[in-house]
Amino acid sequence: MNTAFAQKIDAVIESLTPELVAYSKQLISFPTVAGQEQGAQEYLRTMLEERGFAVDMWEPDIQAMREFFPFFRGSRESFAGSPNVVGVRKGTGGGRSLMVNGHIDVVPPGERSAWNTDPFTGVLEGDRLYGRGISDMKIAHAAFLTCVDALEKLGVQLKGDLILESVVDEETGGAGTLAAIMCGYQADGAVIPEPTGMVACTSSPGVSYFKVKVKGRAFHGGTRYKGVSAIEKAMEVVTALQELEADRTMRLHHPLFPALIPFTINIGTIQGGAWPSMVPDEVVMEGRFGISPRETLESARAEFEKALAALAEEDPWFQEAPVEVEWTNNFLLPGESDPDHALVRVAAEHFRTVTGREMEIGGCGAGTDGGALMTFGKTPAIVFGPGHTAHCANEYIEISEAKRFAKILLAVIIDWCGMEESEDL
Amino acid sequence: MNTAFAQKIDAVIESLTPELVAYSKQLISFPTVAGQEQGAQEYLRTMLEERGFAVDMWEPDIQAMREFFPFFRGSRESFAGSPNVVGVRKGTGGGRSLMVNGHIDVVPPGERSAWNTDPFTGVLEGDRLYGRGISDMKIAHAAFLTCVDALEKLGVQLKGDLILESVVDEETGGAGTLAAIMCGYQADGAVIPEPTGMVACTSSPGVSYFKVKVKGRAFHGGTRYKGVSAIEKAMEVVTALQELEADRTMRLHHPLFPALIPFTINIGTIQGGAWPSMVPDEVVMEGRFGISPRETLESARAEFEKALAALAEEDPWFQEAPVEVEWTNNFLLPGESDPDHALVRVAAEHFRTVTGREMEIGGCGAGTDGGALMTFGKTPAIVFGPGHTAHCANEYIEISEAKRFAKILLAVIIDWCGMEESEDL
Repeated sequence: MNTAFAQKIDAVIESLTPELVAYSKQLISFPTVAGQEQGAQEYLRTMLEERGFAVDMWEPDIQAMREFFPFFRGSRESFAGSPNVVGVRKGTGGGRSLMVNGHIDVVPPGERSAWNTDPFTGVLEGDRLYGRGISDMKIAHAAFLTCVDALEKLGVQLKGDLILESVVDEETGGAGTLAAIMCGYQADGAVIPEPTGMVACTSSPGVSYFKVKVKGRAFHGGTRYKGVSAIEKAMEVVTALQELEADRTMRLHHPLFPALIPFTINIGTIQGGAWPSMVPDEVVMEGRFGISPRETLESARAEFEKALAALAEEDPWFQEAPVEVEWTNNFLLPGESDPDHALVRVAAEHFRTVTGREMEIGGCGAGTDGGALMTFGKTPAIVFGPGHTAHCANEYIEISEAKRFAKILLAVIIDWCGMEESEDL
Repeated sequence: MNTAFAQKIDAVIESLTPELVAYSKQLISFPTVAGQEQGAQEYLRTMLEERGFAVDMWEPDIQAMREFFPFFRGSRESFAGSPNVVGVRKGTGGGRSLMVNGHIDVVPPGERSAWNTDPFTGVLEGDRLYGRGISDMKIAHAAFLTCVDALEKLGVQLKGDLILESVVDEETGGAGTLAAIMCGYQADGAVIPEPTGMVACTSSPGVSYFKVKVKGRAFHGGTRYKGVSAIEKAMEVVTALQELEADRTMRLHHPLFPALIPFTINIGTIQGGAWPSMVPDEVVMEGRFGISPRETLESARAEFEKALAALAEEDPWFQEAPVEVEWTNNFLLPGESDPDHALVRVAAEHFRTVTGREMEIGGCGAGTDGGALMTFGKTPAIVFGPGHTAHCANEYIEISEAKRFAKILLAVIIDWCGMEESEDL
């Protein structure tokens, strides 16, 4: 791509700044917490249809998904009112297809008093646009629409297909992207604009929430030694999980995950016992299990289960009452793409052109839909987007960074999909 | 007491068996769980007044009690509808006073399906009378009334005062007996007919329910090592309490408490954390702290607090965030009487006469109102009564054992209080 064309990309996105901000504000205004995604998805359907996309909008079928994906449970009773939207605009032929995948659901805003603005009203202050979900990750949809407008302005006709997946349920279990995979949507490459601070992440760790039940035997607290305390037994379980985490940290070394503990086992909640003067007969703990992109969900879960089953070798109580492990609804699949994949090289080139810096390649700090897309979805992907505030009060995006992202994305779309020759360009 | 008189006691109680059963059934029929003691107490007031007792019936004043007893908190907002009843029948003079103390409150019946009969209908099957609270401890009140009837039948006039304390709140914090102590009720000796299986317990351990709050520092579970897990810190607290219990077991050896762990520390409940993928920032544990009859409530509590404060010496986290200890409402004071006290000797003599066996002297298996009575109440006491089922489904008393108890109690009353000479006897 020559310098003149790069300048055109720069100019067209600059000229579309009002649209980028307007689309962002519009998307923020839909309070798309789990179960309330309908309005935003209808808006996107309309926007895509007006721009020549064939739009598929459907509610994921939990029962069918359970049959298709054995590990899937589903975070909700049903997805009624929570449709996925996929828009496909066919290219003229001969090019590579590109998908932008963005989840439309957002986490709840939390305490309103912690916000300086209304979380569901986009408020621009200087370079910052505030609103729940703008960085995680409605800027993806806004940037995509802006790029489509830019293609129109530039008169570019793509050879490859251009696809927007606006999915539900990323924050609560990843059903949306899995449902799209089940419908057969895939592409030659994908960008998932999660807020990575513009780091291109080719590896997405998995995460699987767990619930473990530890049994005891109730007895009057005054003669507690005649019972078996589930709290004391839970301490052995905590220790076993700490040891498993330490062992995995040694074993699962991954160059893109240099953190102290890259794939943590976090015990987040504990609850047990019925009465102060009774030996507790059950303790339930829930937590998150981090999984390396180089594992499968199933193999990692099996390792976790094995570590807890092994407790019976040291403490006969666990022979009598094995720890029960339940994998709850919330999980994201691990997966990774080749960091030398052509898509990464294309992105790196345009990153350099737009920013003047080298693109950093990394691993995602948290689970994303990238894992599903890269594995079951058969779609090489980079998780790459502007912003770094997620799940906190006063979430915002810097418009200057969002524009840099839109410029890179537009260049990648054109470069990746290819364009028909035109005398204007 | 001569053999002829012992035979009269035997005969009069045998003749009053229908009354003993009827009073028991009547008392069972009042479902006197915490807050619902009014009906039974009114019944007892009437019964006592009809038998020449001056009756004091009043609702304990929590605020006044808090001022009187610094360690007292109170298990309820108020005792409206939960009055104490104390009946006093003055003797002719020159004798020792005897108090029978019985709590009228019962623990909830629990799962109805576990009961073969209605818990609040006294059902006699063979020798067993079933009903919630009959052994713990409405048989006390029934036996007392039967003894009063027997005194009438025998034409006995007591020299010393005879007192029935029917108190509330033994099961939930011991406020009833404390309220009676605050009003000045005391005696030269007391019998507390808790279901000790006819063992005379001169020592009553204390118990104090606790709530400990362990702090952590919240963080995203994916980088959990940047936070501080309150669950891991709670494990240190559990270990510290296990060590304290072991140390106390060595130190607080008591001949009447030969159990493996006589004064247990039982952690009964645990609760903490908000979300599987968040480092838990607080864990709350509740439990029961067993106290030797030779300690005071205050000194034992201070030892417990000191052990948790000492955690800061080993783990600097606890300097930053000390464990918070709260002594909740439910407690019973520790206390003991001299096992050679005259009342014990009198009881032992009549036990031998009635049963042909030697009376066993022991320590109570659980906290009772005896501790308060023996210490603040300045009343030497034995905790001594029929039955051994408490707090379980299908609670019952054996009528044959209840009659043996009533015979011993009647003989103790007459012997202890003394009687006016009469030519009939």
